[in-house]
Amino acid sequence: MIDYRSDNTGRAAPEILDAMVRANTGTALGYGADEWTARLQERFGELFETKVRVFPVATGTAANALALAASSPSWGLVYCSEAAHINTSEANAAGFFGGGLKLAPIAGKDGRIDPDAFARTLAAIQPGQLHRGQPAAVNLTQASDLGTVYVLDDIRAIADVAKTRGLKVHMDGARFANALARLGCSPAEMSWRAGVDILSFGVTKNGGALCDAIVVFTPELADGLAVQLRRAGQVWSKMRFASAQLMAYIEHGLWLNLAAASNAAAARIAGGIAGLPGLRLVAPVEVNEIFLELPTGVMDAIERDGFQFYRRSATLARFVCRFDTSEAEADALVAALRRHCAGPADTVPARAAE
Amino acid sequence: MIDYRSDNTGRAAPEILDAMVRANTGTALGYGADEWTARLQERFGELFETKVRVFPVATGTAANALALAASSPSWGLVYCSEAAHINTSEANAAGFFGGGLKLAPIAGKDGRIDPDAFARTLAAIQPGQLHRGQPAAVNLTQASDLGTVYVLDDIRAIADVAKTRGLKVHMDGARFANALARLGCSPAEMSWRAGVDILSFGVTKNGGALCDAIVVFTPELADGLAVQLRRAGQVWSKMRFASAQLMAYIEHGLWLNLAAASNAAAARIAGGIAGLPGLRLVAPVEVNEIFLELPTGVMDAIERDGFQFYRRSATLARFVCRFDTSEAEADALVAALRRHCAGPADTVPARAAE
Amino acid sequence: MIDYRSDNTGRAAPEILDAMVRANTGTALGYGADEWTARLQERFGELFETKVRVFPVATGTAANALALAASSPSWGLVYCSEAAHINTSEANAAGFFGGGLKLAPIAGKDGRIDPDAFARTLAAIQPGQLHRGQPAAVNLTQASDLGTVYVLDDIRAIADVAKTRGLKVHMDGARFANALARLGCSPAEMSWRAGVDILSFGVTKNGGALCDAIVVFTPELADGLAVQLRRAGQVWSKMRFASAQLMAYIEHGLWLNLAAASNAAAARIAGGIAGLPGLRLVAPVEVNEIFLELPTGVMDAIERDGFQFYRRSATLARFVCRFDTSEAEADALVAALRRHCAGPADTVPARAAE
Amino acid sequence: MIDYRSDNTGRAAPEILDAMVRANTGTALGYGADEWTARLQERFGELFETKVRVFPVATGTAANALALAASSPSWGLVYCSEAAHINTSEANAAGFFGGGLKLAPIAGKDGRIDPDAFARTLAAIQPGQLHRGQPAAVNLTQASDLGTVYVLDDIRAIADVAKTRGLKVHMDGARFANALARLGCSPAEMSWRAGVDILSFGVTKNGGALCDAIVVFTPELADGLAVQLRRAGQVWSKMRFASAQLMAYIEHGLWLNLAAASNAAAARIAGGIAGLPGLRLVAPVEVNEIFLELPTGVMDAIERDGFQFYRRSATLARFVCRFDTSEAEADALVAALRRHCAGPADTVPARAAE
Repeated sequence: MIDYRSDNTGRAAPEILDAMVRANTGTALGYGADEWTARLQERFGELFETKVRVFPVATGTAANALALAASSPSWGLVYCSEAAHINTSEANAAGFFGGGLKLAPIAGKDGRIDPDAFARTLAAIQPGQLHRGQPAAVNLTQASDLGTVYVLDDIRAIADVAKTRGLKVHMDGARFANALARLGCSPAEMSWRAGVDILSFGVTKNGGALCDAIVVFTPELADGLAVQLRRAGQVWSKMRFASAQLMAYIEHGLWLNLAAASNAAAARIAGGIAGLPGLRLVAPVEVNEIFLELPTGVMDAIERDGFQFYRRSATLARFVCRFDTSEAEADALVAALRRHCAGPADTVPARAAE
Repeated sequence: MIDYRSDNTGRAAPEILDAMVRANTGTALGYGADEWTARLQERFGELFETKVRVFPVATGTAANALALAASSPSWGLVYCSEAAHINTSEANAAGFFGGGLKLAPIAGKDGRIDPDAFARTLAAIQPGQLHRGQPAAVNLTQASDLGTVYVLDDIRAIADVAKTRGLKVHMDGARFANALARLGCSPAEMSWRAGVDILSFGVTKNGGALCDAIVVFTPELADGLAVQLRRAGQVWSKMRFASAQLMAYIEHGLWLNLAAASNAAAARIAGGIAGLPGLRLVAPVEVNEIFLELPTGVMDAIERDGFQFYRRSATLARFVCRFDTSEAEADALVAALRRHCAGPADTVPARAAE
Repeated sequence: MIDYRSDNTGRAAPEILDAMVRANTGTALGYGADEWTARLQERFGELFETKVRVFPVATGTAANALALAASSPSWGLVYCSEAAHINTSEANAAGFFGGGLKLAPIAGKDGRIDPDAFARTLAAIQPGQLHRGQPAAVNLTQASDLGTVYVLDDIRAIADVAKTRGLKVHMDGARFANALARLGCSPAEMSWRAGVDILSFGVTKNGGALCDAIVVFTPELADGLAVQLRRAGQVWSKMRFASAQLMAYIEHGLWLNLAAASNAAAARIAGGIAGLPGLRLVAPVEVNEIFLELPTGVMDAIERDGFQFYRRSATLARFVCRFDTSEAEADALVAALRRHCAGPADTVPARAAE
Repeated sequence: MIDYRSDNTGRAAPEILDAMVRANTGTALGYGADEWTARLQERFGELFETKVRVFPVATGTAANALALAASSPSWGLVYCSEAAHINTSEANAAGFFGGGLKLAPIAGKDGRIDPDAFARTLAAIQPGQLHRGQPAAVNLTQASDLGTVYVLDDIRAIADVAKTRGLKVHMDGARFANALARLGCSPAEMSWRAGVDILSFGVTKNGGALCDAIVVFTPELADGLAVQLRRAGQVWSKMRFASAQLMAYIEHGLWLNLAAASNAAAARIAGGIAGLPGLRLVAPVEVNEIFLELPTGVMDAIERDGFQFYRRSATLARFVCRFDTSEAEADALVAALRRHCAGPADTVPARAAE
């Protein structure tokens, strides 16, 4: 069996678990008042080249929902892509933690918000108009939920539209490292320098275990968030075990190496299937996800071949590469797709057994 | 320095971190659809001698608040001890996750609810009376926030009062193992057999790392809770790392051994200081916590001696033992208290240096 | 000036204010325990030919949001038309009172939900699938926000889809009387007999003053709602003044007479402009609202002529008739539209002065 | 029957209903964009001698809860008297609208907060301490829920304590006019000049019908509140009928005349029963409420005599005077109490029939 179901079906990077084991010594104050968490603040400050507040949290859903709740009054409208994870997959956690805030989808291409569509939407709401709620924030998923990235100009364009109306900018960086590895820019460039106020810093999908984080660039968002996190049950009393994971994740470039590896596996697959008849990439493969339109028969066939993946619909399959997806595994998927797409899958059972 | 500040300043039991490392192999479905979590359900069913639903969560605050939210409509009143952790230390997480439910303190002794006071309070609210909100649930902290335990008859008495009015019974078992070790009864006896509907199953304070759990005995509370947990950002995508911790915690009696050790250390200290003039136990020492009324001067003195502990007020100190508190550490505290309480602390600096 | 802006810019029916004045005698128990409110329950029971619970509330937004909160857990999905008032104009009150429930728009024609589209949407969500939230209720606006009505078969079809998945059916009856007058059926046929569980019973838009109501057909929704209303600040202590308004509204057919009058005015206008070049009815005129696509120049021209109306966009105008819109006022609008649509408005200023 | 049950069992002042009838002419923009509501802002500005924002709302519960929600983040602590209406009688509306804020009772005398107790409570919470939630606001009930008033120095003392920690000051003025009539000061002196940021301006208990108001003195609280009110279903589309009530209430001193009348009736009763054996005033009678400790037998006896009142407990009765309580009604109650308290009530049935 070769597993392409998700980046969360995979292992943790051993370095991250090692760091937990190493942190298991002596006593330390609870709830983040420990030395590990203090050092975490410093290290992330260096990493992002500015003073930040870093809050470890259990999950990406917690990171997103609490970051948005910090960015919006409870009567706020939060703009996002129709495909955004906060809109499709988090059971409306943002609406819940935000006290009833509302998500407002904006059109765009390949899972991204289109800056012009965003500007037009805002222009249609007069300041002082109350009956729809108040525009409060915009959410960008970087990389997007279709495996594409916003280039820096895109981020800036959206942030500019937001800032002219006083909206906050939240980046859902569940695959922040993958996007960073793709763009080859600095963490600062892809976040606060492009206008991001607050970031969901994803770790789990890129080799983490039980911990993601919120990184706050705009200081006035942090103090309230600190209380919200406590109230949300997201402040571990033995925080050192979370902070140690986050430290290990960014030390010695581990996070970028992991992301580069999963990106490379996806690129290898995308390259291998380019031009094959009978399949269609739904969006460019820019990080570690591949969205393929395939005949149902082909999906059935590669499943019989031992590949695991998610069916988003009868004709849409998603393949996700992880940091430990090997070249051999990538090549195996390419070979299988080549076999089954060469002709009508259902008519060539013999080749499926090759 | 000898640390008596809290049971959350301590290390994790090495077995628990080992379990995480061992779980780091192969791929597994996300969000609790993995084999570790499936086995967890079975093992807890055996442990509690009934079918249960077990939900790993990040913190005890999350466990309490979400368990209560599952037990009460948003307009509910949840009765608890004035000293209850949910009332004093969780930033009103129960009120938040419960959509505005209200905590209603009930009088009692040594951090416990008095069953008669509870009955009288309920009797004073007519069914159909709306303006106070609706009685919905009762919360017991076992062991209590003053380090005492409810004996089984107490639990049953409170549960009986609750059940006659249709209220749910929630046990905050942040120190469930410590209470169990004290009472020497079975997990079933101290929970559902005594009328408990839903349990916050504490791990962190007794050698855990990053994971507690909610155990549901009353099935109709579980389905909604499952969605709430997702929405609360409490469902790890790599859940196996949490479930593995919980499994290790209860295997081979680890949890009870850890609790017995911290209880024994506290009992050793309590025995050693019995009858000393100038100090007063605020409540009987029944688990791993010691609440002492002490002159400020004595607090200052033992702090200078290298002991760490929390001051709850100018005259109230709390000492908490952990599973790895040694007999030597216990004896050292006893000796220091004996020194400083033999005479007026401020006048005997010479003896403080003994 | 002739006002077609909204049905809420108008006067109250004098009978309704008279009823308040007549209720201003003697003393009466507060919070709905008075005789007026008791009789209200009986009278609405007769009106709807079944036992109901009637709760007077201040506004239609309160009626909708609290009815939906009673119909859905806080993690619920509530389906509605994209054009539904709860989705476009109530500042996400449903999301707020519902503790974070989420509105999910369904496609359809003329402001209505399409039953087949609704069925397909539900079919795509597996029971037990948690990450989107849980399907909980469906909202129908009767008459719709584009001035059309659901015929009884439509309501039944949508309710059937809902019931097979255990969803509750809420009708936003802000213009319930207008729809009833249009269909010529009984209140029972258009509500619970067609599958409606809970109804926002609109009064304000049809000659009311300060009071609408929630009518509950499905008894288990009522008890919790009663507490929610108290907590929502929607239970007047001098409730008799609200109940008296509601009684007057339905006595002697007042409500249907008022609705028939506003419907007739709209029909008169629609008839008068049928076939005019340069304008287009966006939806059939079935109650008291007319949505017209018009050149901006024509809008400017009729505004100069003294007509007040709302511009929904540069080319979409809404005209609303009230119970006291006279035939002369209707004819005046027809005449003005005829004038300005006969030729390019901007080029015929002379005719605008006719 | 003579009704002393509550000030909300009574009639509305006819002037207030007349004002509604007079407002029923012509058309007016909805949701508060009408001329009545514009004039209301001006008139209240004159009344309070400063620029204010006035928001009509349906009930006092709505006024309190929304004013507090505007004054506190959702993780806030709101201090109040144990006896405060928000704490005992509003089904935790403040906790609900405040997104989970928590009420924290403060000790005091006669239904009031003691400024020193308040200062001590705040001093015990360190800034930056997160686990209890954050001190955010204080609520004063003026007149108090035991029928006493805060003198201006009391209000200032509490406001001073609040302001030094950045807390907002909310006054629950359900009986604002009664307190004002008692103190003989100006509305400004009893509100913003004494440090009040936001006021629940009560009308209903003093001759109103269906409308109270929130008056905002601290401008930054108003904009968010305006959206919250819309979302709370508290913004009537035909707002003129509410604003007209509020205008009539304060015109020509009506409100103070009404309050003076009910205060005078209570004072007459209190004077008449002074020194009677067998009864005890629980608190000084300073406005229109009388709290009496009485033997159960006396309560039964005066009930048989035809008096209606509320029993707060087996020995505590509350009598409330209204603006239309006559001197004869007051004297009748005095006479009845004199009769039944002269000797053991149960032994003198003959006198009860006098």
